[in-house]
Amino acid sequence: MQGIQNRSIGVFDSGLGGLTVVKELRREMPHESIVYFGDIARLPYGIKSKEQILNFSIQNTLFLLKQKVKAIVVACNSSSSAAYHFLRDHFGIPIIDVIMPAVEAAACVTHTGRVGLIATHATVASQAYERSLRKINPNLRIFSRACSLFVPVVEEGWLEDPITEQIVRRYLGGLRHKNIDTLILGCTHYPMLKASIRKVLGPRVQLIDSARPSVKKLKSILIRQGLVSKSKRKGELRVFVSDMPRNFKQVGEKFLGEKLHKVQIVRGF
Amino acid sequence: MQGIQNRSIGVFDSGLGGLTVVKELRREMPHESIVYFGDIARLPYGIKSKEQILNFSIQNTLFLLKQKVKAIVVACNSSSSAAYHFLRDHFGIPIIDVIMPAVEAAACVTHTGRVGLIATHATVASQAYERSLRKINPNLRIFSRACSLFVPVVEEGWLEDPITEQIVRRYLGGLRHKNIDTLILGCTHYPMLKASIRKVLGPRVQLIDSARPSVKKLKSILIRQGLVSKSKRKGELRVFVSDMPRNFKQVGEKFLGEKLHKVQIVRGF
Repeated sequence: MQGIQNRSIGVFDSGLGGLTVVKELRREMPHESIVYFGDIARLPYGIKSKEQILNFSIQNTLFLLKQKVKAIVVACNSSSSAAYHFLRDHFGIPIIDVIMPAVEAAACVTHTGRVGLIATHATVASQAYERSLRKINPNLRIFSRACSLFVPVVEEGWLEDPITEQIVRRYLGGLRHKNIDTLILGCTHYPMLKASIRKVLGPRVQLIDSARPSVKKLKSILIRQGLVSKSKRKGELRVFVSDMPRNFKQVGEKFLGEKLHKVQIVRGF
Repeated sequence: MQGIQNRSIGVFDSGLGGLTVVKELRREMPHESIVYFGDIARLPYGIKSKEQILNFSIQNTLFLLKQKVKAIVVACNSSSSAAYHFLRDHFGIPIIDVIMPAVEAAACVTHTGRVGLIATHATVASQAYERSLRKINPNLRIFSRACSLFVPVVEEGWLEDPITEQIVRRYLGGLRHKNIDTLILGCTHYPMLKASIRKVLGPRVQLIDSARPSVKKLKSILIRQGLVSKSKRKGELRVFVSDMPRNFKQVGEKFLGEKLHKVQIVRGF
């Protein structure tokens, strides 16, 4: 029988953005195998109700558990804010969100204590980031802004583009005047817009994307619980999606930074 | 027992855009009661596979049939292209799509025979408009363009806005050089962008939005089959949605042009 250490790490997201977390996982822990589930049939989560996002997140977690994963990364900000505590409290394996690790990283690097947050409407409205920041350091101030057009712009592939820069400027204009020195990119799609965001906010604002801190947190938990893979070979990556749209491979490979193989459709979501 | 004439007309869409069809229905046939279903939990359909859109459309139709409707308008272009023929052939009541009526209207008004079509990727890729146009008049030429950012821009409320105008210009630039004299707005959201589209294409291009021709077609079928309501009072409007997002009422009322009452959430979609 296979040891529990050699089981895969599960990652789910509403779409393909969570592949940015997989990319970082494969860089940081190359011997781990990964099962990814992208709930494309029901994306985007960001505009849906908290109850609906919780239902979806439970179903996604159950799907990954059936694949016998040893830990799960909730690589979706909407799910992290609407469902993380429920999932952590009701399932018996380590579950990592993408909010708390990003907030810890932001609290660590800010000098002025003025932190910006950009995310989808659902994430901003949930105030999950504010609650997490207050737990760490009640003196930090957070300024948030929902940026509804960022995801569609990234999926359209308009990355370094004058129209995108104007859209970024429109959304971030207000934050520029808040004198933030740190900005949390609270959506897995947003790192693709880093160039435009840097142009608008200038080089003094540090951008925090949650992939790296979340993966670091997972790694330390796996080490502590003796769950690190004993394999010496490069880990496998299996990708499941609940639907496969036209530009799936093209967008997915942009997020993942490598070729996408072994993609399977799972119906019934 | 209630006569079949006094049953409601069913309308479904992936979201709220189909309320533009309801608006036209209420203008043209004020005594008809209407049941609307917006499948918000699973929107947008435009980026999903044909198989998935067909599944969703069948479920939506069954939901409306349970509400005892006498006819159905498929007020969603993605559903019209992926599912209309199936629905029409397998259910026993009049079912109207939004594609054929728009195409008939375009064929009627074009002088040059050069017709443009803008829609979501799924609708453009399905070539449903081209097939319909060829059936009516094989000499017409159709030039199509997918405009992925139009729906999110409308839902963000950026209607008459310089950024929106640039986005419209980017998508429609190619069509301007095709010398079209008629443009089909192949998505229920797009009529909200008419002002920007007119600015970019100029006053000589006629814009065809499917609400009016679809409602006219439905009316003539109801008259022919003796299904027109005998009521003398203003018809009721009941709205069901599979999820209720934050700005639901605000966006919905913009499409509908009147206040939204009696909205119920239906779970399980």
